[in-house]
Amino acid sequence: MKQIGFIGLGIMGRPMAKNLLKAGYPLVVYNRSRPPMEELIGLGASGSTSPKDVAARTEVVITMVPDSPDVEAVVLGPNGVLEGARSGMILIDMSTISPQVSRRIAKAAAEKGVKALDAPVSGGDKGAIEGTLSIMVGGEPEVFEECLPIFQVLGTKVVHVGGHGMGQTVKLCNQVIGPLTLLAVCEGLLLGARAGADLDRLIEAVSGGAARSWMLENIGPKILDRDFQPGFMIKLMQKDLRLALGLADELKLPLPATSLLHELFRSVEAGGEGESGIQALVKGLERLANFEVRRGVGSNSSP
Amino acid sequence: MKQIGFIGLGIMGRPMAKNLLKAGYPLVVYNRSRPPMEELIGLGASGSTSPKDVAARTEVVITMVPDSPDVEAVVLGPNGVLEGARSGMILIDMSTISPQVSRRIAKAAAEKGVKALDAPVSGGDKGAIEGTLSIMVGGEPEVFEECLPIFQVLGTKVVHVGGHGMGQTVKLCNQVIGPLTLLAVCEGLLLGARAGADLDRLIEAVSGGAARSWMLENIGPKILDRDFQPGFMIKLMQKDLRLALGLADELKLPLPATSLLHELFRSVEAGGEGESGIQALVKGLERLANFEVRRGVGSNSSP
Amino acid sequence: MKQIGFIGLGIMGRPMAKNLLKAGYPLVVYNRSRPPMEELIGLGASGSTSPKDVAARTEVVITMVPDSPDVEAVVLGPNGVLEGARSGMILIDMSTISPQVSRRIAKAAAEKGVKALDAPVSGGDKGAIEGTLSIMVGGEPEVFEECLPIFQVLGTKVVHVGGHGMGQTVKLCNQVIGPLTLLAVCEGLLLGARAGADLDRLIEAVSGGAARSWMLENIGPKILDRDFQPGFMIKLMQKDLRLALGLADELKLPLPATSLLHELFRSVEAGGEGESGIQALVKGLERLANFEVRRGVGSNSSP
Amino acid sequence: MKQIGFIGLGIMGRPMAKNLLKAGYPLVVYNRSRPPMEELIGLGASGSTSPKDVAARTEVVITMVPDSPDVEAVVLGPNGVLEGARSGMILIDMSTISPQVSRRIAKAAAEKGVKALDAPVSGGDKGAIEGTLSIMVGGEPEVFEECLPIFQVLGTKVVHVGGHGMGQTVKLCNQVIGPLTLLAVCEGLLLGARAGADLDRLIEAVSGGAARSWMLENIGPKILDRDFQPGFMIKLMQKDLRLALGLADELKLPLPATSLLHELFRSVEAGGEGESGIQALVKGLERLANFEVRRGVGSNSSP
Repeated sequence: MKQIGFIGLGIMGRPMAKNLLKAGYPLVVYNRSRPPMEELIGLGASGSTSPKDVAARTEVVITMVPDSPDVEAVVLGPNGVLEGARSGMILIDMSTISPQVSRRIAKAAAEKGVKALDAPVSGGDKGAIEGTLSIMVGGEPEVFEECLPIFQVLGTKVVHVGGHGMGQTVKLCNQVIGPLTLLAVCEGLLLGARAGADLDRLIEAVSGGAARSWMLENIGPKILDRDFQPGFMIKLMQKDLRLALGLADELKLPLPATSLLHELFRSVEAGGEGESGIQALVKGLERLANFEVRRGVGSNSSP
Repeated sequence: MKQIGFIGLGIMGRPMAKNLLKAGYPLVVYNRSRPPMEELIGLGASGSTSPKDVAARTEVVITMVPDSPDVEAVVLGPNGVLEGARSGMILIDMSTISPQVSRRIAKAAAEKGVKALDAPVSGGDKGAIEGTLSIMVGGEPEVFEECLPIFQVLGTKVVHVGGHGMGQTVKLCNQVIGPLTLLAVCEGLLLGARAGADLDRLIEAVSGGAARSWMLENIGPKILDRDFQPGFMIKLMQKDLRLALGLADELKLPLPATSLLHELFRSVEAGGEGESGIQALVKGLERLANFEVRRGVGSNSSP
Repeated sequence: MKQIGFIGLGIMGRPMAKNLLKAGYPLVVYNRSRPPMEELIGLGASGSTSPKDVAARTEVVITMVPDSPDVEAVVLGPNGVLEGARSGMILIDMSTISPQVSRRIAKAAAEKGVKALDAPVSGGDKGAIEGTLSIMVGGEPEVFEECLPIFQVLGTKVVHVGGHGMGQTVKLCNQVIGPLTLLAVCEGLLLGARAGADLDRLIEAVSGGAARSWMLENIGPKILDRDFQPGFMIKLMQKDLRLALGLADELKLPLPATSLLHELFRSVEAGGEGESGIQALVKGLERLANFEVRRGVGSNSSP
Repeated sequence: MKQIGFIGLGIMGRPMAKNLLKAGYPLVVYNRSRPPMEELIGLGASGSTSPKDVAARTEVVITMVPDSPDVEAVVLGPNGVLEGARSGMILIDMSTISPQVSRRIAKAAAEKGVKALDAPVSGGDKGAIEGTLSIMVGGEPEVFEECLPIFQVLGTKVVHVGGHGMGQTVKLCNQVIGPLTLLAVCEGLLLGARAGADLDRLIEAVSGGAARSWMLENIGPKILDRDFQPGFMIKLMQKDLRLALGLADELKLPLPATSLLHELFRSVEAGGEGESGIQALVKGLERLANFEVRRGVGSNSSP
């Protein structure tokens, strides 16, 4: 089994690293703050002093950090992965970042003989904990094949979607489709609520047909419960939408609904709820409507 | 088994009537034009000369016609259902119409001792043919229970969602959620296509996670195939969106994404494709983008 | 001087009728409620018992009522203008209504030998009082020329814009351009306020260039004063936008910004302020932003 | 009279520098490419080898370059203005850039004893040539007063709008209000054109009232002429909108209409017309509408 290095032990990275340990992979971990590293060491991982040190001691390095500049710092910066890497090492960046930065990193890696994959994930902390992530991978097919056993520990849907940066591109498309689908659910629930429908029955009925979606079935009920605990935080979604709209801007591609969505999330942020789950999107619409969606409110009344 | 009258033998009504016949219900049918009526008569139904005549000869009358004024004409007009109805008859309107008109009809029916249900459906001609429609029913619970066996011949998901008009209200919510979900899919595919992604892989990968929807899995591939054959026509969807936005207007409820969607569909209509399937929504965005989504176009290229 | 009949003595009609009296025109007036009629009679007008009676006694009949159905009732209904009209009479409808209804009325009038003009106005009650309205006239050029002296009493900008219904069409275009320009002002002021700018200076500076508009110079300061007294009420503007968007819908013309505007005004209506002036549009954006534009708020602070 | 240095002799800078020369100011000029510098030298200016050199020889340095990174390079970079500046020098940046970068530059300047003003302009090349620019100035009031004579050579509307960066902030507000007002004009003209109105008459009539704007009166006729020659290029407007939306993003301020505008301009860019004048905005709407605004097209027809 390959020696794996894991850099970035946050809400996503920690459970992913644990799953690799559980699957038997020898693991060297690094995190900017100490406590999550201690936790993993307690479970059998080996600690480390820098990304460079991680790279020097492993065959495959996985990075899972917040944004493009973080990946750049950790990989290209001083004491970064590429300083410690030997030729033949594989770098798997599982963060969600700009496709362009991803391609730049792959290029810099190649100059050191390091093979890179971009492999962003979807499925939230729940998917990370349960090992049921969806993983979209960009890079060379042979490198993908070589790493497939690792990916299969972390996720249940692993798809090689193209060359360098394409994992990121597909992830950004995912981040356009997902929250726009949620927006669909929010406007429908709002109309139902305002017109006095029983919203549980509405979700049940609508889920039977062509308007069915994961968001409707899984996030719809959370909205009825006024449960805004984050599975995925609005501020992180906004970061991803910024990347997606930035990519669209470069490509001269108008995405009017995605833009509107970005503005509506901003309304929720303006209300101080950037750290709520993305289902709080409904609050942007509610603010505009001066009305709140509530389970059963007026469920038998007519408008 | 109850004697059923069926008024409106169009793309949806004809297969629904056939399924009732097949299930053994004695059927009296009426349609403005003759040929579809002949077809049903050939299968064992009894023909009729007017909605009034249908009502006079049956215990349950189902109407399945295009829009609010059509239901009003067929039920409330001269030689209409209410002229022929006896007290105790049940009227099931399965058309998609305004919730207000639906309530007005229920009231007029009640004055004649006729019990009304509004029971619009979702699932398209495919669902009508296969008997797998989703049916959203508004009206009295006892009347719903009494008609349940009939509904179960026509659909697989039958939900009683509230009082008179609530079936229509929930259907309109469905018509907001469905095409907005399609809009989500369209913007995501467009971004992927423009950025050079392999769109089949994109759909496969995205379907594995939180962005999954019926639209992505069933309509996404049609978009890649440039198959714009109508399952459900844009001009009919626009009619439903007009009803939904009209309801929202009365309720003083802003629905910004639904409005944007209505404008984008109008762009497709402006291009002369109002009779294409709703998946032609992508053409509104394509026109704006001066770019066409195509399977595999530039699937290995970088932006 | 021609005998003029004036039907509809509301906020606009009353001052218009007074100006005609002042200019020396013999005037027969009619209004559904009595008090405004009394006021005009006190100033020298002659009262009347019905639109039919007004028409029977005058050469030119002006109608100034709220909406399409009102004009239809007053002109085409029982005891309406056309019942009392003699051949050769001129009917000037100065209400803002649907261009289609306007054309239908012109046609019905022609069948009685009555010549119709549609002549909606812009300029608000202020323009009505001061006789400085802008008047957009549709109909035959000779009829327009014949009525020009009358129009010049009521307004300072009188333009013959085309055939029957074209006055209404141009008015609807005016009702698209005006409030969208106001929306431009609102978003600019909101950005300035949120970034800590001195908004009086902002208006002064911006008015010097290409972003100058009547709305910026006249309505901008009202927004800073939080003066939401109606010059023109939101609920009336919404009626006009409904007409404009309905016309666009028939013509299969997407108007995405006008749609967005309609939704934002609806947000203000949802807040219970449909009877505020249109400048309260800013409150829809403020609700979304969770922030209020105020003169001098943080005018020296940095973001 | 003060010795003035002028850096950046593009479409705007060249005529501004000429006006200063004409007004009698001794001028030292610098431009990356040689020819525009030669032209100014031919008119009496003195040439220079670097921004540093310009600063070393003058009391007031004006910069007029495309974007934030350009100002940073010219002022803060090697051989930049601050390297050559003596204490007491005044730096006036007349470019349109990020308010934050503007404040950063003012701070760096202050550390060298250099007094900074941000003084972006509006009015296009026409205003630059004629000396009728609108100038929005941020910085210390005394420094503003000291430079007022210089500003009065360049523009007719000069307003001190606040502290460092506020000139830029107000300019961005201007860049929100201006093109949104243009969008108002475009949707109104499109509706008029599609409904068969005479568009010259429409502009005349609408200009008489509350919907009047500089854009309607000056840019409206260009749209009717299909004259898309740039006064101000779309690609530059998009740069400014990116700055404005970026500022709004930091401030958590939703600007839904500005976002929509940005998408519509992007549609025009997607059509390859990023270097057309901003009036080509109408082409984004036309593409969506599958219809072109033309003077007099169908001007007497009904819809």
